[in-house]
Amino acid sequence: MKDPIEYQVHEAARRAGVAARELALLPRAAKDEALVTMAEALVAGTDDVLAANTDDVRAAEESGAAPHLVDRLRLDASRVAGMAGGLRQVAALADPVGDVVRGLTLPNGLELRQRRVPLGVVGIIYEARPNVTADAAGLCLKAGNAVLLRGSGSAMRSNARLVEMLRGALAAAGVSTDAVQLLDATSRSSATALMRARGLVDLVVPRGGAGLIRTVVEQSTVPVVETGVGNCHVYVHADADPDMALAVVLNAKTHRPGVCNAAESLLVHSALVDSFVPKVVAALHEHGVTVHGDDAFQRASADVVPVTEEDHATEYLGMEISAATVPDLDAALAHIRRYSTGHTEAVVTDSVAVAHRFTTELDSAALMVNASTRFTDGEQLGYGAEIGISTQKLHARGPMGLSELTTTTTIVTGQGHVR
Amino acid sequence: MKDPIEYQVHEAARRAGVAARELALLPRAAKDEALVTMAEALVAGTDDVLAANTDDVRAAEESGAAPHLVDRLRLDASRVAGMAGGLRQVAALADPVGDVVRGLTLPNGLELRQRRVPLGVVGIIYEARPNVTADAAGLCLKAGNAVLLRGSGSAMRSNARLVEMLRGALAAAGVSTDAVQLLDATSRSSATALMRARGLVDLVVPRGGAGLIRTVVEQSTVPVVETGVGNCHVYVHADADPDMALAVVLNAKTHRPGVCNAAESLLVHSALVDSFVPKVVAALHEHGVTVHGDDAFQRASADVVPVTEEDHATEYLGMEISAATVPDLDAALAHIRRYSTGHTEAVVTDSVAVAHRFTTELDSAALMVNASTRFTDGEQLGYGAEIGISTQKLHARGPMGLSELTTTTTIVTGQGHVR
Repeated sequence: MKDPIEYQVHEAARRAGVAARELALLPRAAKDEALVTMAEALVAGTDDVLAANTDDVRAAEESGAAPHLVDRLRLDASRVAGMAGGLRQVAALADPVGDVVRGLTLPNGLELRQRRVPLGVVGIIYEARPNVTADAAGLCLKAGNAVLLRGSGSAMRSNARLVEMLRGALAAAGVSTDAVQLLDATSRSSATALMRARGLVDLVVPRGGAGLIRTVVEQSTVPVVETGVGNCHVYVHADADPDMALAVVLNAKTHRPGVCNAAESLLVHSALVDSFVPKVVAALHEHGVTVHGDDAFQRASADVVPVTEEDHATEYLGMEISAATVPDLDAALAHIRRYSTGHTEAVVTDSVAVAHRFTTELDSAALMVNASTRFTDGEQLGYGAEIGISTQKLHARGPMGLSELTTTTTIVTGQGHVR
Repeated sequence: MKDPIEYQVHEAARRAGVAARELALLPRAAKDEALVTMAEALVAGTDDVLAANTDDVRAAEESGAAPHLVDRLRLDASRVAGMAGGLRQVAALADPVGDVVRGLTLPNGLELRQRRVPLGVVGIIYEARPNVTADAAGLCLKAGNAVLLRGSGSAMRSNARLVEMLRGALAAAGVSTDAVQLLDATSRSSATALMRARGLVDLVVPRGGAGLIRTVVEQSTVPVVETGVGNCHVYVHADADPDMALAVVLNAKTHRPGVCNAAESLLVHSALVDSFVPKVVAALHEHGVTVHGDDAFQRASADVVPVTEEDHATEYLGMEISAATVPDLDAALAHIRRYSTGHTEAVVTDSVAVAHRFTTELDSAALMVNASTRFTDGEQLGYGAEIGISTQKLHARGPMGLSELTTTTTIVTGQGHVR
C-alpha cells in the first residue's frame, strides 16, 4: 500500500499539472494581476502571518534550536512587506513565456520558431526562511509554472498562513489555487515523494545547506537544479591596488557572511607577504573575522590560527576565512580548482593577462575581476529576481531568473513538407 | 575494495578531466584540424574497420541476435565514409565556445559577459550503431569536451578499431588522446560506474532503447539528458487538404520507421471517416504498414487490426501504426497529451486557430504544422549535427547540437566594485 503522505504528494502534483496547463496559456496581464493581488494579501494579512510566526519561533526556541536558525525563521512587519515588494517586483519583470529564442526559415521553406514555454510543475524543497515561500510562488507563477512548496517543519505555521493568503489572492484573481500548494512538512516522506515523482514533477530545486542539496541530488529521480553551495575565493595578485584589494576582500567576507556568495578563502601572491598580508589580517581582525592562515599569515599576527586542509575546503558561512600565500598565478589557479565548489571566484589585479587566465582557466559559475564575490546575485546582475544560484552546469548556471524556469518548444510550419 | 572496472572508469574520467582543461582552451583552428585528421584516418583505415566489424557481425549472428540488430551493427565502406563526412561537417560548423550569450553594462558600471564554455567530461552510453562512436567524438571535441564512450558489447571490436584510429589522429594533430576514450563493454559495471561518477563526469547521454534510457535515468547521479523515445502523433483535422495529409502521414510513418521521429499514431477528425480514412488505410497497406485502428478504421478495411490501449502507448519503431478517429480538436489534444512521450506531434490543417491551439496547448519538444514529424532532426532543423534528440525539459529540448554540449560562465569586470 502506498504511504498516505506519498499519495497526498502525488495527488497535489496531479492537481498542479492541471493548473500548469491553465497557467501556460495565461497572458502576462493576468499573471501580473494575480501577483499584485498576492502582494496586497500579504500586506493586509501581516498581523496573521506574524502571529503564526511567533508560534513557530516559540516552538523552535523551546526545542532548543540554534540562535541563527531561530533568526532565519523570525519574521517582522518589514520582512513581510519585503515579500510583498518582491511579488510586485516580479510583476514588473518581462514575461519569459512566448519569447522566441531562435527563429529562421530553412532552405526548404520550413519556418522554425523555438519558443519559451513553462516547465510545468516545479517543486521547491527549502529550509527555514519563510520568505522563500512567497518568492518561489511569485517567480514560478510569472514563468507559468505551478509550484509545490515543501518548507521546513520549523516554519510550518508561518508557511501555512502565507500560502493560505497567496491562494486566496489567486482565487480572487481568477487563477486556479492549485498553482500554489504547500506540502506536509511533518515528516521526510513528503520531500522524498516529491523528489521521486518523476513524470508528475518537472523540476526540483533544493534550497538550503549542503546536506539537503546532497540528499536531493542522490535520491531524486525528478531532474534537479543544485543551488547555492559556495566556497568562494578571492585571489590578490602581486600587482593589485592594495586599497582595492582590501575593499574587495572585506566586502566579500563581511558584507553578509551567511550567504553563498560570501568569500571563504583568501589567496595572496607571496610578493605581498610584508605589505598587504599584515594589512588585510589587521582589517579582518578589526571586523571580527577569525583568520585561518598559513605560515606567512601567522607571522603577520599572533591571532592567526594555523590553517588546515579541511579549512581550505570549508564553507564557513560565518566570520571565518582560510588564507594562504601562493608563489604565482598557476599556484592560485591550482588551489582554486582543487577546493572550489564552482560558485564564484574573484581576482584583484591590474594585469590583462592575469585577468584573462583567471577568467578562462577556472571553471566556476561566476568569475569576478576587481569586484566582490557578493555580486553573484540575480538582482545585482540584472536578472530582476532569482529562485537560487545554480552551481551545476546543466540547464542553468549562476543566478536562476525567470528564463531559467522555462523550457522551449520548437514549432515548425510547412506547406505539406515531407522528407 | 573498489571494483576493478569502476577503478578503470574513474581513472579514465580523471584523465578526461585533465584533457578537458586543455580542450577548453584550444582555438577553433586546432579543433578543426584534429577533426579533419580524424576523418582522414577513418578513410585510410576503412579496411581495418571493416575487418573488425566483420568479426562483430559474425559473433552477433552466431549468438542468434535479431536481424535488425545485426543490420544496425553492420558497416560497409560507404558507412565509414559517412562517418568521415560527418567529422568534416562538424569541422565546418561554428565553434560554440566563447560565444557571448548575454552581455551588458550594469547601472553601477560593472561589465557582464555570459560566455559559452565546454561542459568538461561527457559520457555517452549507446547501443549497437558504431557510427555513434565517430559522431559523438567529433561533436564533443568541437564543443571542447572530453568524451567517454561506452558502446555495446556487440560492437566492441568495431568501436575499439575506430577509437584507436581517432586517437591516432588526435596524437598526430597534437591533441591529448585522453580527449576520446573507449570504456570496457564486457560488463555492465563500466556503464554503472560511468553514470555514478558524479564530480568526475559532467553529463551522461544515453542513446538507445527505452530500457537503456530508463536505467540511466534511475541510476545515474551524474546529470543526464534523456534522448529519443518518440511516440509521435499525426492529427488530420477536418479541413486538411487530403493530398497533403496523405503525404505527411506516409512520410512520417514509412520514410524511416525505425527512428524516434517516425509517426506511431494517427488521429483523424471524424468528419473524414468516409473520405480520408479509407484512402489513408489503403495507402498505408500498400506501403506494408499494419494499421491498428478503432471501429471507423476497421470499417475501412478488413485488414485493419483492432487497436488496444497498449497500441496507443507503443513506439513500434516498425511498419505499424495505431489509428483512431476523434470528434474534435479537444479530443485529439487530450489523446496526444495522454499517450505522447513529448517528442514530436504534427497537425495537418488549414485553420490558423487550430494550428495555434495545437502548438500552444501541447507540451512536446517539437510541434509540426503541415509538415512531417521526420523533420525533428538536428541536420534538418539547421543545427548542423546532433548528439541526440532530447525529450526532457531541462538543459536541452529537441535536437541537441554543439551549443547544447556547452554551459556558460558569467564574467564580471569592475574597478574595485563592492556592495
